[in-house]
Amino acid sequence: MTIFKKVTIIGVGLIGGSIGLAIKKRKIAGEVIGVFRHESTLKRALKCNAVDKATMFIEGGVNGADLIIVTSPVHSIPGIIKTAAKYAKRGAIITDAGSTKAWIVSSVEKSLVRSRKVHFVGSHPMAGSERAGVEFARANLFEKAPCIVTKTAATDKASLNKVIKFWDSLGAIVKVMSPASHDRSVSLISHLPHIVAFGLAGSVPLREIQYAAEGFRDTTRVASSDPELWADIFLTNRKEILKAGRAFESYYKDILKAISKGDHKKTVSFLKRAKSKRDALKFNGKERELNL
Amino acid sequence: MTIFKKVTIIGVGLIGGSIGLAIKKRKIAGEVIGVFRHESTLKRALKCNAVDKATMFIEGGVNGADLIIVTSPVHSIPGIIKTAAKYAKRGAIITDAGSTKAWIVSSVEKSLVRSRKVHFVGSHPMAGSERAGVEFARANLFEKAPCIVTKTAATDKASLNKVIKFWDSLGAIVKVMSPASHDRSVSLISHLPHIVAFGLAGSVPLREIQYAAEGFRDTTRVASSDPELWADIFLTNRKEILKAGRAFESYYKDILKAISKGDHKKTVSFLKRAKSKRDALKFNGKERELNL
Repeated sequence: MTIFKKVTIIGVGLIGGSIGLAIKKRKIAGEVIGVFRHESTLKRALKCNAVDKATMFIEGGVNGADLIIVTSPVHSIPGIIKTAAKYAKRGAIITDAGSTKAWIVSSVEKSLVRSRKVHFVGSHPMAGSERAGVEFARANLFEKAPCIVTKTAATDKASLNKVIKFWDSLGAIVKVMSPASHDRSVSLISHLPHIVAFGLAGSVPLREIQYAAEGFRDTTRVASSDPELWADIFLTNRKEILKAGRAFESYYKDILKAISKGDHKKTVSFLKRAKSKRDALKFNGKERELNL
Repeated sequence: MTIFKKVTIIGVGLIGGSIGLAIKKRKIAGEVIGVFRHESTLKRALKCNAVDKATMFIEGGVNGADLIIVTSPVHSIPGIIKTAAKYAKRGAIITDAGSTKAWIVSSVEKSLVRSRKVHFVGSHPMAGSERAGVEFARANLFEKAPCIVTKTAATDKASLNKVIKFWDSLGAIVKVMSPASHDRSVSLISHLPHIVAFGLAGSVPLREIQYAAEGFRDTTRVASSDPELWADIFLTNRKEILKAGRAFESYYKDILKAISKGDHKKTVSFLKRAKSKRDALKFNGKERELNL
């Protein structure tokens, strides 16, 4: 089902590459253009057929595109969108795949406020991997993955619906919310777990790591993620992360306190409550698919 | 390779059942007896062929056994070993699969000190799953899993070697250490990650859980573990867990502080150090096998 004639992806890594592969597999667009910062990534992306055409220049890359998706690191997104908007055709839709939304959306809306030439809608496809790079891209990355699309007072309704339709056509489960609600949710279910995983991996002496079994491996898996990329995400969602951190610390400390007092009943009760929440992600003992 | 004529497993769940299946598959013993507390488990264990014979009575179950393995919850292990020792034949070896060692080993050594009739060697096969129950048992559970075997001044050398040989024959990678060293290691690489996972799962509002992607799922997977079983483990390793907890909190708080100050350089540096440790568990981008 073709939705767009021409889609341009700026900053093609794991996410951008997977978007390209998914668009092509599902024939969502007539043509997929990739805009790259490094020639080595450009070559790798062409090699794995993530895009039809590749360029190092935003100006030419976005020329005539109906949809422009910016999948570069968070801090770079508002600047790239500003440039892309300058060269985009009238009526083009711009979206992104950044992991924080309030900072990106407000920055972009400020810079685009005087122009109604293009329409911006914020997106956050919640898929990925601790591995970065276009070579790990896959066409099914977004299937059944949650994708949050943001809506503000400045959001153009028709463009919002097209962006929703786009992620939906890639197999994602789309949910619309405000940038602030998004940032609160992801601080709790993505950003804080990453910080905790980094904290765990960082605090264990290297000589003990050799004894690590599945529990440690799973709990710290995301601590293998890209430090620059995640520092970026954390620093653009500080307020919500600090709030989520306080909620975690309070529960964690309650458990530790019950343990230190040798209070079996209280310890079991804290663990049970946590287990019941985690089990909400399961169905018949297996990981449950999302039900947004 | 038959090492024992008769092995008795007391408390057959995921671990005990997997030991039974592995012994039978690898022909380590002529006969495997299971001792059960509940008839329903007994039936399930026989159904999945985890043991050759099953009984509800320790007295008859351990009769004539060369090796007795107690795989019941931690708090019950010393008492069960005391009873088993009474009915065991002279020269029998008793081991366990408890997740903490100092408390178990010292309790057992105190109760057996006057009798040299049987020999106790503490074990901790570091395999398992957040799923409990004999129906999840599998013969390959211990393959390439670390297994720590404890040695103290009271440990009989010949029995120690037989227990090492036993776990080795099940495919585990055996390491000998003192109960205290064991408890320090597992507090860091197993107990604390579990507490943190329970803390994370417990602190997230249920309405947010629906947006959870892979990161949250992995980081909190072990929070689905059995609360009674883990409360038991935590409460018998309090001192080391509180020490490990302080190390984690210090690293975690350093990250949060750098984020709250908007300090990009420091944030990246903490994440990098954590990533380099977690990456030590990998080889060519894939999870590395253990190399004890």
